[in-house]
Amino acid sequence: MLMDSAEYRESLRRYQPRVFLNGQRVASVADEPLLAPGVAAVGVTYDFAHKLQYAELMTATQKTSGKLVNRMLHISEDSNDLLNKLEAVRLVCAESGCAQRYLSHDALNALFQSTWQTDELHGTDYHQRFLNYLHDVQDQDLTLGVAMTDAKGDRSLRPGQQANADVYVHIKERRADGIVISGTKAIVTGAPYMHEFLVMPCRTHRTEDADYAVACAVPIDATGVTIVARPAGRPGESAAKFSAKYGQSTGVVIFEDVFVPHDRVFLAGECEEGGFLTTSYATHHRHSCIGARAGFGDLLIGAGAMVTEANGLDPDRHGHIRDAMVDLITITEGFYACGVAASVYCQEDPAGVVMPDAVFSNIGKLLLANKIYDMHRLAHYVSGGMIVALPGPDEDHNPETAASLAAVLGGRQDIPADKRLEVARFIEDLTASHQGGWYSVISLHGGGSPEAMKREIWRNYPTYEKRELVERLLDRGVFDEGKRTSRQPGRCCARGCQAPESMAKP
Amino acid sequence: MLMDSAEYRESLRRYQPRVFLNGQRVASVADEPLLAPGVAAVGVTYDFAHKLQYAELMTATQKTSGKLVNRMLHISEDSNDLLNKLEAVRLVCAESGCAQRYLSHDALNALFQSTWQTDELHGTDYHQRFLNYLHDVQDQDLTLGVAMTDAKGDRSLRPGQQANADVYVHIKERRADGIVISGTKAIVTGAPYMHEFLVMPCRTHRTEDADYAVACAVPIDATGVTIVARPAGRPGESAAKFSAKYGQSTGVVIFEDVFVPHDRVFLAGECEEGGFLTTSYATHHRHSCIGARAGFGDLLIGAGAMVTEANGLDPDRHGHIRDAMVDLITITEGFYACGVAASVYCQEDPAGVVMPDAVFSNIGKLLLANKIYDMHRLAHYVSGGMIVALPGPDEDHNPETAASLAAVLGGRQDIPADKRLEVARFIEDLTASHQGGWYSVISLHGGGSPEAMKREIWRNYPTYEKRELVERLLDRGVFDEGKRTSRQPGRCCARGCQAPESMAKP
Amino acid sequence: MLMDSAEYRESLRRYQPRVFLNGQRVASVADEPLLAPGVAAVGVTYDFAHKLQYAELMTATQKTSGKLVNRMLHISEDSNDLLNKLEAVRLVCAESGCAQRYLSHDALNALFQSTWQTDELHGTDYHQRFLNYLHDVQDQDLTLGVAMTDAKGDRSLRPGQQANADVYVHIKERRADGIVISGTKAIVTGAPYMHEFLVMPCRTHRTEDADYAVACAVPIDATGVTIVARPAGRPGESAAKFSAKYGQSTGVVIFEDVFVPHDRVFLAGECEEGGFLTTSYATHHRHSCIGARAGFGDLLIGAGAMVTEANGLDPDRHGHIRDAMVDLITITEGFYACGVAASVYCQEDPAGVVMPDAVFSNIGKLLLANKIYDMHRLAHYVSGGMIVALPGPDEDHNPETAASLAAVLGGRQDIPADKRLEVARFIEDLTASHQGGWYSVISLHGGGSPEAMKREIWRNYPTYEKRELVERLLDRGVFDEGKRTSRQPGRCCARGCQAPESMAKP
Amino acid sequence: MLMDSAEYRESLRRYQPRVFLNGQRVASVADEPLLAPGVAAVGVTYDFAHKLQYAELMTATQKTSGKLVNRMLHISEDSNDLLNKLEAVRLVCAESGCAQRYLSHDALNALFQSTWQTDELHGTDYHQRFLNYLHDVQDQDLTLGVAMTDAKGDRSLRPGQQANADVYVHIKERRADGIVISGTKAIVTGAPYMHEFLVMPCRTHRTEDADYAVACAVPIDATGVTIVARPAGRPGESAAKFSAKYGQSTGVVIFEDVFVPHDRVFLAGECEEGGFLTTSYATHHRHSCIGARAGFGDLLIGAGAMVTEANGLDPDRHGHIRDAMVDLITITEGFYACGVAASVYCQEDPAGVVMPDAVFSNIGKLLLANKIYDMHRLAHYVSGGMIVALPGPDEDHNPETAASLAAVLGGRQDIPADKRLEVARFIEDLTASHQGGWYSVISLHGGGSPEAMKREIWRNYPTYEKRELVERLLDRGVFDEGKRTSRQPGRCCARGCQAPESMAKP
Repeated sequence: MLMDSAEYRESLRRYQPRVFLNGQRVASVADEPLLAPGVAAVGVTYDFAHKLQYAELMTATQKTSGKLVNRMLHISEDSNDLLNKLEAVRLVCAESGCAQRYLSHDALNALFQSTWQTDELHGTDYHQRFLNYLHDVQDQDLTLGVAMTDAKGDRSLRPGQQANADVYVHIKERRADGIVISGTKAIVTGAPYMHEFLVMPCRTHRTEDADYAVACAVPIDATGVTIVARPAGRPGESAAKFSAKYGQSTGVVIFEDVFVPHDRVFLAGECEEGGFLTTSYATHHRHSCIGARAGFGDLLIGAGAMVTEANGLDPDRHGHIRDAMVDLITITEGFYACGVAASVYCQEDPAGVVMPDAVFSNIGKLLLANKIYDMHRLAHYVSGGMIVALPGPDEDHNPETAASLAAVLGGRQDIPADKRLEVARFIEDLTASHQGGWYSVISLHGGGSPEAMKREIWRNYPTYEKRELVERLLDRGVFDEGKRTSRQPGRCCARGCQAPESMAKP
Repeated sequence: MLMDSAEYRESLRRYQPRVFLNGQRVASVADEPLLAPGVAAVGVTYDFAHKLQYAELMTATQKTSGKLVNRMLHISEDSNDLLNKLEAVRLVCAESGCAQRYLSHDALNALFQSTWQTDELHGTDYHQRFLNYLHDVQDQDLTLGVAMTDAKGDRSLRPGQQANADVYVHIKERRADGIVISGTKAIVTGAPYMHEFLVMPCRTHRTEDADYAVACAVPIDATGVTIVARPAGRPGESAAKFSAKYGQSTGVVIFEDVFVPHDRVFLAGECEEGGFLTTSYATHHRHSCIGARAGFGDLLIGAGAMVTEANGLDPDRHGHIRDAMVDLITITEGFYACGVAASVYCQEDPAGVVMPDAVFSNIGKLLLANKIYDMHRLAHYVSGGMIVALPGPDEDHNPETAASLAAVLGGRQDIPADKRLEVARFIEDLTASHQGGWYSVISLHGGGSPEAMKREIWRNYPTYEKRELVERLLDRGVFDEGKRTSRQPGRCCARGCQAPESMAKP
Repeated sequence: MLMDSAEYRESLRRYQPRVFLNGQRVASVADEPLLAPGVAAVGVTYDFAHKLQYAELMTATQKTSGKLVNRMLHISEDSNDLLNKLEAVRLVCAESGCAQRYLSHDALNALFQSTWQTDELHGTDYHQRFLNYLHDVQDQDLTLGVAMTDAKGDRSLRPGQQANADVYVHIKERRADGIVISGTKAIVTGAPYMHEFLVMPCRTHRTEDADYAVACAVPIDATGVTIVARPAGRPGESAAKFSAKYGQSTGVVIFEDVFVPHDRVFLAGECEEGGFLTTSYATHHRHSCIGARAGFGDLLIGAGAMVTEANGLDPDRHGHIRDAMVDLITITEGFYACGVAASVYCQEDPAGVVMPDAVFSNIGKLLLANKIYDMHRLAHYVSGGMIVALPGPDEDHNPETAASLAAVLGGRQDIPADKRLEVARFIEDLTASHQGGWYSVISLHGGGSPEAMKREIWRNYPTYEKRELVERLLDRGVFDEGKRTSRQPGRCCARGCQAPESMAKP
Repeated sequence: MLMDSAEYRESLRRYQPRVFLNGQRVASVADEPLLAPGVAAVGVTYDFAHKLQYAELMTATQKTSGKLVNRMLHISEDSNDLLNKLEAVRLVCAESGCAQRYLSHDALNALFQSTWQTDELHGTDYHQRFLNYLHDVQDQDLTLGVAMTDAKGDRSLRPGQQANADVYVHIKERRADGIVISGTKAIVTGAPYMHEFLVMPCRTHRTEDADYAVACAVPIDATGVTIVARPAGRPGESAAKFSAKYGQSTGVVIFEDVFVPHDRVFLAGECEEGGFLTTSYATHHRHSCIGARAGFGDLLIGAGAMVTEANGLDPDRHGHIRDAMVDLITITEGFYACGVAASVYCQEDPAGVVMPDAVFSNIGKLLLANKIYDMHRLAHYVSGGMIVALPGPDEDHNPETAASLAAVLGGRQDIPADKRLEVARFIEDLTASHQGGWYSVISLHGGGSPEAMKREIWRNYPTYEKRELVERLLDRGVFDEGKRTSRQPGRCCARGCQAPESMAKP
């Protein structure tokens, strides 16, 4: 069953989560105006799955069940799946700013891998539990929130050293029928309007912190769960035509003695596999982030072209405007290309999932994390200074000023002033409002901070291959071309694959 | 008479400007809560003039009158004045975000120069009119808004070609006792809470557009003046401790048949001198912008150090945090150094005013224009992702969540959670709110867009000196070291000056 | 027949080109020590075609003939061909610095397209002539030089306006059996050791300059051809272990009344198609350049890892070294990813050739053009200052200093000083010698200067799609999802995802 | 006595240093062609001291002796001295590429400070010894090499842990009349043509490594000193008109049991003061480097303007060329401004020396270190690709090609081809030759690597002042404006403006 956005919104009524917003308890998430833009943004992923022209991007057949599912819930099986997912994420984020639901995909794929691997190493039965859960989620076409980033407390201390144990989510009690967890996840995207949370560790824990290596699924309204959220977008703000319609909420989620039955527990103390799960999720997610922010780039490029025209400028004659537009394109497509390359050079997991290439995924995310600020700069550059000076939309209906302003704030004569102001406000909304701030911070830190990406790039890069090359060129040692046993296991080219043993690939 | 901030606020009651804000007429600027942060920010320039430790920076003796005046109204006479002004602007902007009043200084200095020069060339009497006006402004310790950036309409057309003449301010009628002006200035900083506007042209106009070359002083409540403004800062927002206190309003100012008596007219059709006035103002103002944004840098550096500590991190141990802090410092002090150099290598005008060096001033402004976005990025980098996820301050008083949040959102144990949240919100306020957006756009476009700075750098740089050097090194032609008649007139070193004929200086 | 490098070198004896080097006529290109590194670098493309593990990358079946040919001479027919070509170029350039022969591929593919298109529009028979020529070149396994960049003279004037007509190559005479050409091509890569030159126009010419729109094949020793070349690499320099072995020569090629028979003429006055040929070549070539410079990146990454180790540093402990290595990787793989994406989103020409996506190809080339300098910087950063201070290799055999130097210039104890010096000199060779300068300038300007890429990016980017998106989000006009007639013809797979069904399958 | 360049060259005959170059012993430094460009570059500092128009920059009165001395040997006493020194260094380096002798200034100033401080703390008599030495050096107008960077061996080990003690210079024996030193200094600028070496430690050593904390003066031909050097510039290369005239040699200097009498010993085991000496030298030197590389920038700017013109381009019409020129100017003057600011905000040492501000000095050096690569890029950008393709100058005299090449390689018609080639070769010489590589590496690592500057910026920056500001704005604690006891001692003028009265008067 593939829901549409209306059905998704209705389905939220089945849950009674304890959500606080601006200090007030939310009575009904589905009806809360301050959350409506967030619900609408997720809704795009539902509606687009029903559009014929997006069928290949937005839906896929789940191999383990043979059923057609939403792309955001699908387990990727080959390079094409990754390319389709990447394009799908770009598509829904270009429509909504950030459709959020791709986090479900990223977490499900990582759990698919980690449960399989944990079973292999520990003889557990997590994978079958997970498969049952996955199929159920796909059948119901749910949206899952990712509860990963712990509150962390003093960042220089391990979980077990913290004064307050609840700054990290952990297993407080192990029962015959399940586990009891407590603790706080600090940044949960779209928290109030998810169906369930996938709780996952945010780092590799040491053996003495084994109780912190926990992964499980928790309905949003499970007893003991409290969500303290921020409004999604800029609901009700007349200056924010876009962010009043689409937005994103982030929330702190507090777990207090929450019971999780066994069939929803996917990791419970296996430290190493917890680290694998974290890294695997990070790789899938960084790959998705590339598509998401490229969609954001699409919005800026389109708006940049429109505001330029409304200002009476022509990129073909005004070189500095064209240069800025080309920079915007170069940034957007430059990091997007890393997402494409990560899809092409993907790696098949023994569990049957493909991982986007870790080096390309991390480079793409690293580039967008830093360059989102340049994107803001370039959008401001082409739009001119008026975006912070133009009167608010309340003025549009002020009989004492509206006519004068319309007369003088026009740009190119054939483009009415209100059309010019509208696109200027659109850029302000995306880049110079608190929503714009959200896009920048979430691009920088979402899916891990730049430092984490640098570590992953270094860890995964086949530096040894490059050394080997130079050593050979300097006539050092014997270069056994037929053997190359030092090759990292598992790095392959999923394109078919024409040249698995090629050294040219990273 | 040097007012303090309370007297300044009271003085605003003497004016009855026609101000609209969010579609409503403002009854009293002095009492309007939505403008209070703007009034408070300007107020800093008044209060600091009374602080003994800032006396040298914040006050100066006006040579033409022998009176002690506020630095923001002083005509700079030597290199020290420029350094003091630069430091003074940094000081008041580090306190208030942006104290706005330095624009008065920049316009007064430029008018001092342009009226003198216009008289020299045209035998007019603008300079004496201006001196009278200047002394009056200084005596009353006023704050003057700069009404320069015209609405412009279609940017590919000249003023006289526009469909609506009022997209540029122009002389509509010349009377025996003065002139009548009409038109719109689009971005006027602090418009509602100024005492007067200094109207100035924003470019060199052609002879056929001579009526657009107009400069004059207009009281804020002159008949025919309408101000459509935006709120200053984030008044009343509990999440915005800083911007609820200090902020900036920008406004569109519409002039409809405004009469200006002769003694307040400083340019009326002299096109070339209008261009000189624009450029001269731009140079003074770009120099001031450097100090202003360095003050903004001070706020980010201080907050960055505090949030790092609250997060439990130590720059001496966590190299990536130290690197980010050093980048923030390098950016801030790097462009500030250009302001210092512009002060040192200033140029004395025949009128007796010193101009900061145009090359260094434009480079400093160009650097800050682009790098403000990097400053935002670095502030976000050191603060971590929580700044967009943390619950709003309303939650602080929610009995159902306040205690839990306080317990889990703390960082370093000896720093209470509320102190950590407070500094995180401070950074959000400055960089990820609409106020943050304002700081970035105004840095990019305020005082002219980057393209304008590039043109000025190229126009003013003594490229010929460098060519001469290389030609001599390639044994071309005769290098007459004693003569160097090609030297640009007027470029000197105001430091005394030890080496006016040195080729080493730019 | 696939030659190996020895056969290639021997084959050069069949030609008697008029080559000058350092003011002297070269007696035999095959035996000239100053050209040997260039011959060796091209030779890599011959030898690697015989290595089993590179078979899929280095060879391919030419569809029009059914024969197995060297990848450097193959007409690309699908996305896989482009990926294989990209990897192949990276492979041979990682071995040789720059193997040069990929230019043959780029020109042949462009001529395949342009001759087909010219015939379509003008009813000419260029394409069949070209196919005959192509198969002959493939059968003989030749290497073709690209003679494209005219000397240009005064760059502000058109060809026909130049004082000396010979600053551009042009048709001087049209005969019954062929044409006579004259003029100068200024930068011809590998000129002295090519078998033939493919002469091509370097821009779209106007109708009045139709004689400058000429493309043809000319044997290197045709009567009237003079080559003035520079040495390849650093032959004989003991400090340059790598560049003494592999290098690149560039040459000025002067054509004086050179007769070209009809079967070797591929364009003769068709201006528009000349422009198409130029652009098409540029796109293929920029795609290849991405692979080439990624291979150069491989050398720096490998050497950087080695010198770090020899200096006794460990990237895992010294964060600033790791950061520099990660930057080097991020740059290299970042622009390489654009090559991958250009391959995936390729476009099939009606002639049956695939073009790499123009936007991604130009972005990749633009990135590498600017970032080659950062690559040099990073290589210097990790290697430390000693690379410019270390004594030359002559000192290694100086009995009075060799022992002392060996004793004190060692780094990590288990790595002998000579191994440390060797890798330091390798980096100096690639980045701080005239060879290093060559790599940087050729990266910046080879395949067109950055300005040309910016123009192509802007011209090819589907900006209209992004506008359409934003207009729809702002509720402007009707968005007919099924139609989208504004779609640019020929883009088979858009980043905007409107046509998933036609996505190039990786 | 102020020598001129001829006298300086002659004075070198008084020394018999043991110098090896390309594996050969140098018979006479003054007569060695391979060193002549280095001697000529230093000679500029002698000749310019005799030019009337540079008198104020190039000479100064030494306060401790009352004598007129060369600026390169003067102890700076106030802000003006620092500005004059900065301009003087720029002047001589714009003439010679790098005049090297400013290192003498930097070391003498640091030793002046450190000997004074060491005496204060340890009751030693180093300062008087040093003053005697200083006056003697000034009287003789010598040039002193700085022997500071030790060979270092394994960089992860302390000096005392190294397998070979001689990878660091150290005191091997303490005698009644002096000390005996051994060890290797790896990068000594201008080593072969110095009069004496100032040996100094390159870091703070621990107590157990006290013997490595040694500073002293050693004549270049002292018994036991061996210099292994590289040629200066590109002597004899016809393509290198500039670098054949002016260049720089760097050398490894090996000290084997060199006896140094007490009156030339300035530090002998005082570890802390050794660190102070290192840091102090670094600050003076980084300030000087700013001037030096600005002079290099002057050469590129001049050459860029010339080659643009020769190519027939006009920056006023070709925006991308103007942008590149403006970037080149912005980089050069941007870091130079840091040198100016460091001079203005200097700090007076208790010994009577002024130190340039450490923050600004380090920022300026950090900027130039990274941006030298951008300077190369921009010079290549404006000059076009021909600089690597143009035939060598040997071709100019080849009767078979010279005329043709002259005819076709011209650019703008009124500029002969040879003038165009000459300036293209000049740019190649400075940026794409091994000399160009030297400029880049020495800019990056000379005076310490970027990591060292970052540490110094962080260590010296008054971050606490910025914290205090923000804490006050957040209403934390009491802000005692009159007191501010936390003030760092010794900062005489703070950017934070607390002490306007003590501002260094420019």
